[in-house]
Amino acid sequence: MPRLKAPQRRQQLIEVATRLFAEYGYDATTTAAIADAAGVTEPILYRHFKSKQEMFVAIVREMSSQTLKHWHDLTTGIDDPMEQLRRIAEEFPDHIRRLADAYHVLHNALTTTHDKKVLGVLREHYEQIERFFVDIVVAGQKKGAFRPLDPKVPAWQFIFTGIGYAMVALNLTQFEKTNVEEAIEYILRGLKA
Amino acid sequence: MPRLKAPQRRQQLIEVATRLFAEYGYDATTTAAIADAAGVTEPILYRHFKSKQEMFVAIVREMSSQTLKHWHDLTTGIDDPMEQLRRIAEEFPDHIRRLADAYHVLHNALTTTHDKKVLGVLREHYEQIERFFVDIVVAGQKKGAFRPLDPKVPAWQFIFTGIGYAMVALNLTQFEKTNVEEAIEYILRGLKA
Repeated sequence: MPRLKAPQRRQQLIEVATRLFAEYGYDATTTAAIADAAGVTEPILYRHFKSKQEMFVAIVREMSSQTLKHWHDLTTGIDDPMEQLRRIAEEFPDHIRRLADAYHVLHNALTTTHDKKVLGVLREHYEQIERFFVDIVVAGQKKGAFRPLDPKVPAWQFIFTGIGYAMVALNLTQFEKTNVEEAIEYILRGLKA
Repeated sequence: MPRLKAPQRRQQLIEVATRLFAEYGYDATTTAAIADAAGVTEPILYRHFKSKQEMFVAIVREMSSQTLKHWHDLTTGIDDPMEQLRRIAEEFPDHIRRLADAYHVLHNALTTTHDKKVLGVLREHYEQIERFFVDIVVAGQKKGAFRPLDPKVPAWQFIFTGIGYAMVALNLTQFEKTNVEEAIEYILRGLKA
């Protein structure tokens, strides 16, 4: 097997774990199976991650930061908050397809886990996403483009739409055509000043 | 153990299966464990359900029809489609808490299953919910209360909000206060003619 440097090995283990958790669920996947699929021994896996839980935490944190980085990149250079939200909506179907396994893992954990640490990381994830959208809404309100309302209300409409769309579009192919851009236009209409 | 008549036994088995699927996940729960928790032998379980899959299908169908019956009951006697949607939103947090286990089972299956039969039943569920909301939106459009737009767009905003709210409020207690009524008011504002 090829020897990888520590950061690459860590990354490879996260990728393998994401794929197996998405396929078989978090509970049904053992660290032995992850090590096996990654072509390493369990002791090597444990050099990088103390536990399966720690791998899950790493997956959610990486997915969170990838999502936020992607959205920052998409919206940098766009002044109009309405247009920023449209850009994110346009790219959202591709974004969730690219991160489909990680979304499966996150949503699956949300429906099953009782693990406090895991729930804490999920909460952190949604808090960051909430803050991201609240910032855009507040910026739009300051410009007078958005009506004054509690910015958390539209922020959560975006989050609910993201969760619902990902759950349905990733898993029930018939609904793939459910148009997330139309959904976002609908939400934006309700934001207009 | 008490002898139950066939319909009561069937109902009891569905309730036990719902609880176990919600707690341990569909994949990790065996028909032996369900029979055991229900206080019957596996052959008796098999008299009522041919397979675990058939129990899952029964859970989703029952939850679908309970939800639609509940919404029909809530909205009967209310003429204004806007008020009908408000009534449903008001009762939604209690409704999902009452059916919390069934929602867990449904959303968990949505994130994990590759079983075509199971996916077919999930699709059926969302088609029925879509039709319910489309009917209300179309009725509001006919009365001139709602603006003309593809009624599926707001119908899916309601569904996404329902899925997102259930996923977050049932599983991440910190977000329990996320107000579904405010979310629905927000959606309704975008519907107004």
